[in-house]
Amino acid sequence: MKRTELFTKTRKNAPADEVALNAQLLIRAGFIHKEMAGVYAYLPLGLRVIENIKQIVREEMDAIGGQELAMTTLQPKDIWEKTDRWDDAKVDNWFKTKLANGTELGVGLTHEEPVVDVLRDYVSSYKDLPLSVYQIGSKFRNELRAKSGLLRGREFLMKDMYSFSRTQDEHEKLYEQAVEAYHKIYQRLGLGDITYRTYADGGIFTERFSDEFQTLSEVGEDTIFVDEAKKIAINKEIMTDENIEKLGLDKNTLVEKRGVEVGNTFHLESKYTDALDVYFADEGDNRQSIIGGCYGIGISRLMGVIAEHFADDKGLVWPDNIAPSRVYLVQIGDNVDQAQTIYDALNEKGITVLWDDRNERPGVKFADAELIGLPHRIVVSDKLDGQVEYQSRTSSEHELLTIEALLAKLST
Amino acid sequence: MKRTELFTKTRKNAPADEVALNAQLLIRAGFIHKEMAGVYAYLPLGLRVIENIKQIVREEMDAIGGQELAMTTLQPKDIWEKTDRWDDAKVDNWFKTKLANGTELGVGLTHEEPVVDVLRDYVSSYKDLPLSVYQIGSKFRNELRAKSGLLRGREFLMKDMYSFSRTQDEHEKLYEQAVEAYHKIYQRLGLGDITYRTYADGGIFTERFSDEFQTLSEVGEDTIFVDEAKKIAINKEIMTDENIEKLGLDKNTLVEKRGVEVGNTFHLESKYTDALDVYFADEGDNRQSIIGGCYGIGISRLMGVIAEHFADDKGLVWPDNIAPSRVYLVQIGDNVDQAQTIYDALNEKGITVLWDDRNERPGVKFADAELIGLPHRIVVSDKLDGQVEYQSRTSSEHELLTIEALLAKLST
Repeated sequence: MKRTELFTKTRKNAPADEVALNAQLLIRAGFIHKEMAGVYAYLPLGLRVIENIKQIVREEMDAIGGQELAMTTLQPKDIWEKTDRWDDAKVDNWFKTKLANGTELGVGLTHEEPVVDVLRDYVSSYKDLPLSVYQIGSKFRNELRAKSGLLRGREFLMKDMYSFSRTQDEHEKLYEQAVEAYHKIYQRLGLGDITYRTYADGGIFTERFSDEFQTLSEVGEDTIFVDEAKKIAINKEIMTDENIEKLGLDKNTLVEKRGVEVGNTFHLESKYTDALDVYFADEGDNRQSIIGGCYGIGISRLMGVIAEHFADDKGLVWPDNIAPSRVYLVQIGDNVDQAQTIYDALNEKGITVLWDDRNERPGVKFADAELIGLPHRIVVSDKLDGQVEYQSRTSSEHELLTIEALLAKLST
Repeated sequence: MKRTELFTKTRKNAPADEVALNAQLLIRAGFIHKEMAGVYAYLPLGLRVIENIKQIVREEMDAIGGQELAMTTLQPKDIWEKTDRWDDAKVDNWFKTKLANGTELGVGLTHEEPVVDVLRDYVSSYKDLPLSVYQIGSKFRNELRAKSGLLRGREFLMKDMYSFSRTQDEHEKLYEQAVEAYHKIYQRLGLGDITYRTYADGGIFTERFSDEFQTLSEVGEDTIFVDEAKKIAINKEIMTDENIEKLGLDKNTLVEKRGVEVGNTFHLESKYTDALDVYFADEGDNRQSIIGGCYGIGISRLMGVIAEHFADDKGLVWPDNIAPSRVYLVQIGDNVDQAQTIYDALNEKGITVLWDDRNERPGVKFADAELIGLPHRIVVSDKLDGQVEYQSRTSSEHELLTIEALLAKLST
């Protein structure tokens, strides 16, 4: 893509009311637009980052047998009354709306109930289980405060998977498979080393702990205690002596840190399926409860975490597999032909490029390259004898390369 | 994909309250789930159809320079008050909701206002124009009645593009480019021959007509008059003698038909940009109004139209480029190895397959193949001497083919 064909621009300042670093940077670089607190639109560069994160998550969910579907935002209240999650006194962050005839509707807060309601049509026998379904879409939470940019949205993108098993053993296997897939996802997103499986409160339906995936961050809302050797953590909320012992942890090796919850996995027992009257018949034709799990990953929150974590004082720094394009091509002077040749050669190899073909001073282009944060910067200029100047966004060193050497470097 | 790994099943009957043929068939075949009237979830097979339609639309929008973004569902009321489209007395099909502090919000009805509000940050000079942006996402319309399945949704998927030009001439060029792209899209979706550019009311902002794209259908809500020779039509709503003359049509050659509106394109003049105070400075630094156009295509409605249009008395019939998979592989008997060989060979060529590996009678599998409606059916059986039986979904003729001949046939 050429800069002259991209309608967004960079700017010096984010809106005064935007206090979160992730949103400040993403707004300044033209990736997102603030609609209101906690509600952001994705502009072309931002949407590409979102799609790249979604694709990584999708691949790992498919790899463990997840079947993708898309539930609806508008929700009928009857299924939520059955699980006692409709009343605002019970769940205090619904957005609600009404049909023209006055019937109350919910605006997609989460999707356990409607997913179980779909199962009703398809699960009756032990032969129909186990199964896992997932979706990637918008969730709506009526948060009182939303000042953390993409880290806490009122409207945000989430991947939510739901598993349904016949036995506790079967459930445990699917659950641990999902945890394993989560580790792979954070690894691929470049957050593997600073993201901890963290024991946390399991919610009101189970005695068991849930697992949160906490990425270490100074701006995180959660306090966790990390066991570095075991690569595991415990949320402060459940850190009692009893729980520490139950989890086989040692108080003396735990280090306090702040974290952002970038995913969670819950044991649902049979809470939702029983409440919605969805069971299966076992081999002896006896009615049995279905054992559920649910598995969330905040897609837009991850974009915020990645933006904030890798950023330096010059701007954003995207990992190669998430960047909206891999290469920022700075054209200095009139040498359109050479820039076009390189642009075509990179595109032909499937290497995505943002070509700064604007009639601007080199300094403006270099500053934009840094703020937008594509991983690889290439300079084309008459002064380089047909070679190009290459610089990684994470290094201050330049090198002169032939086009062949450049292609070889970026193809690895 | 294997049938044993797909959680959906076919069924004999749709819910009793579902009166639309498109939704009846799509529910029976396991493509969609009815959440409430006019609100459907997309199950795995249905989601693939949606993604295929989206991809075709996306390619054609990209080809005319559209830049993809994603606006938000939650909408602040101030931008809608500026265009006088907030009051329920003016726009009667909003879904509205409230923040915890009582502030009223809209639930994404359409997106002219927020898109123009984004432009405010990026357009100031004639150098920033023209530009076109588009998105593919959910729209919410509080319809009194919603009995037409996917043809009229309260929550539905739409592609909406918005163009912004400096001069009327520039606008006309972008507008006609979009119309041309629309024709290509309907052609690729197999609806080209029965979809007519149709003059219709332009709305309250312009004296000009808008263009609807009407697909002929007995269940269409619109009455149109078609000029077959000119491949053009006029909506009954504007069919006055004066308009017929203005459009250069002849009353005697117009034939009455029923149509489903599968797209529309509007001249917005400067209504939204002026109301939201977004202008550009021309070369002489004079403030000028921006001339807008908007261009909608109903993605989920198209799925319903295609389902309903091509269906026969046995079930759905998907065109090759929209089908959730291209091939339905019926395995008869125990010959897993032969089925696996063919499955692998097809997948390797990038030909998508739904392999019916269930332990079911052949009759059950054949009936499912017909209801689900993939374009190509292949039977693998011990009785076929290593060959496979091929049948197109649109033909009653079988032929025996070697695997090589099959691959050649499906690769064309």
